[in-house]
Amino acid sequence: MVNQQVRLAARPSGLPRPSDWEFTSEDVPVPGPGQFTVAVSHLSIDPAMREWLKARPSYIAPVEIGAVMRAGGAGRVTASEHPGFAVGDHVSGAFGVQEHAISDGRGVAKLDLSVAEVPTWLGALGMTGLTAYFALLDTGRAREGDTVVVSGAAGAVGSVAGQIAKIKGCRVIGIAGGPDKCRAVTEEFGFDAAIDYREPHLRRKLRELAPGGVDVYFDNVGGEILDHVLTCLARGARVVICGAVSQYNEDEVRGPANYMMLLVARASMTGMLVFDYADRYPEATAELAGWYRDGRLVSHETVARGSVRDFPRTLLMLFEGANTGKLVLALDGG
Amino acid sequence: MVNQQVRLAARPSGLPRPSDWEFTSEDVPVPGPGQFTVAVSHLSIDPAMREWLKARPSYIAPVEIGAVMRAGGAGRVTASEHPGFAVGDHVSGAFGVQEHAISDGRGVAKLDLSVAEVPTWLGALGMTGLTAYFALLDTGRAREGDTVVVSGAAGAVGSVAGQIAKIKGCRVIGIAGGPDKCRAVTEEFGFDAAIDYREPHLRRKLRELAPGGVDVYFDNVGGEILDHVLTCLARGARVVICGAVSQYNEDEVRGPANYMMLLVARASMTGMLVFDYADRYPEATAELAGWYRDGRLVSHETVARGSVRDFPRTLLMLFEGANTGKLVLALDGG
Repeated sequence: MVNQQVRLAARPSGLPRPSDWEFTSEDVPVPGPGQFTVAVSHLSIDPAMREWLKARPSYIAPVEIGAVMRAGGAGRVTASEHPGFAVGDHVSGAFGVQEHAISDGRGVAKLDLSVAEVPTWLGALGMTGLTAYFALLDTGRAREGDTVVVSGAAGAVGSVAGQIAKIKGCRVIGIAGGPDKCRAVTEEFGFDAAIDYREPHLRRKLRELAPGGVDVYFDNVGGEILDHVLTCLARGARVVICGAVSQYNEDEVRGPANYMMLLVARASMTGMLVFDYADRYPEATAELAGWYRDGRLVSHETVARGSVRDFPRTLLMLFEGANTGKLVLALDGG
Repeated sequence: MVNQQVRLAARPSGLPRPSDWEFTSEDVPVPGPGQFTVAVSHLSIDPAMREWLKARPSYIAPVEIGAVMRAGGAGRVTASEHPGFAVGDHVSGAFGVQEHAISDGRGVAKLDLSVAEVPTWLGALGMTGLTAYFALLDTGRAREGDTVVVSGAAGAVGSVAGQIAKIKGCRVIGIAGGPDKCRAVTEEFGFDAAIDYREPHLRRKLRELAPGGVDVYFDNVGGEILDHVLTCLARGARVVICGAVSQYNEDEVRGPANYMMLLVARASMTGMLVFDYADRYPEATAELAGWYRDGRLVSHETVARGSVRDFPRTLLMLFEGANTGKLVLALDGG
């Protein structure tokens, strides 16, 4: 049996092109002692992947040229020499863009498919949901009565962040691109209001919707939108830097020219990485799963179908704004 | 007797020009009930003044066209109908760029000239020192063993911030412009090291001097230097936004393009304003004065002499980098 893989062939400039990827195949790996093999059924497609392609050091090592592309995913254990994982177990982990992966169990979670289906375990109940949870509640210290603004509000992390803010009693304004996404933000995800950033007067609309200022800004996009929101901060506001998807394909990042509004508002801008909260994943996952079961948390996934060879074009969907909620590539036969 | 004043005639673009100012004279004001008159002897010349000249709202209202220029200063009470202030008292407050000011006592402090002379009460023992104190210890949470980097290190606030960091047991690196200022930073103010930002390889030098990363960055300048330091942050670093003197005369502010390093380092960038600490001024002033008396805190003032008409050219000295430590304009006959 053969393991189809996608490897990085060249570091992209701008949007990744087909020539930046290489398709290879190997024998399906056989687990050694303490290992198991996973047949990957779903790949998590994330904006951060674009950052991993850059040569410069970041919070995680760059994907090396020639290496299998890093990716979160889910699948089923097909062979095991690991006492904690049995054939047939459903699992999620950083399995890479390939059909079969070998693992020693580190960073691998078992999935309870009686609670939710696999794509949801990659979305609202997976790293996506955990990122939203800790970024909003820990880094952003969102509290009842706060006015919270979320950019990328129809996206994977943003849609969950806004819903958690609502559960916690905040007033929540989402920023998204286009009328369909804005409708999803208010109607499906239950935000109090949505602003379409493709329409003019973003800043004026924000001031109208948040006359007392923004207490928490949950930023997934960076760029111009970050600069607008910086002018609308309440005293003591917390700006959470969770991502900057508008900048990932740019050679020159646009820094927030209005950063001195942090001084005017006595506000902070703080970066977060979900990995720092690993010891709290179980409690947070339990809380997210509880909200999901109770119907208070909606998980929306955009599921593309195909083979690992469809990974490159699926990744581009993120930057075209084609997805609502979590983007997942479901592998044929997976 | 006549009161010479400097008023704002036009909002400057770039560096303020002579035509942006207007000289007027009025009768010396006579205090009403609850008021007193001050003969101003010294003006505090501060980079923030440039920000007050801008039309856009900030942490303080813009100086209106035609208004006496806002300025901190010090002087002697010459007439009083206020029970708390007597003729002959030495006081500091926001008296404006004029020879005589009237006050109701709000925001006015009495100066003990047995502790220090007037320029020092505007510098290390005044708002300047208080800004350094709260920004470093409260906003920046500098602790023993931290590596602290201060920009504008030979300037009024920076030179005090670095000295407080040394007193608190931090390792302190200053960034300043030119060999003379760098010498003052290490020899006079006692920083562990200084980097001349006019020389090449700032970032490499910073990495060499702070191999474990920067725990606290006390930023007075913004611009390119901020971007360099952002690439050298330690995990959990605190960036304190105290000023951005490199940007005050620019029509287009340069935002920190490397702000995503806040995410990589799980770091924060926080703005501060000293006014928020007004209820703690007495304790902080007492601590600063104690260090000053013990010789642990050096106050350096660059004192220009002249009349209020010399204010416009004195203000420009700040942006030419002409001053070391606090810049004060001592008024003739004051």
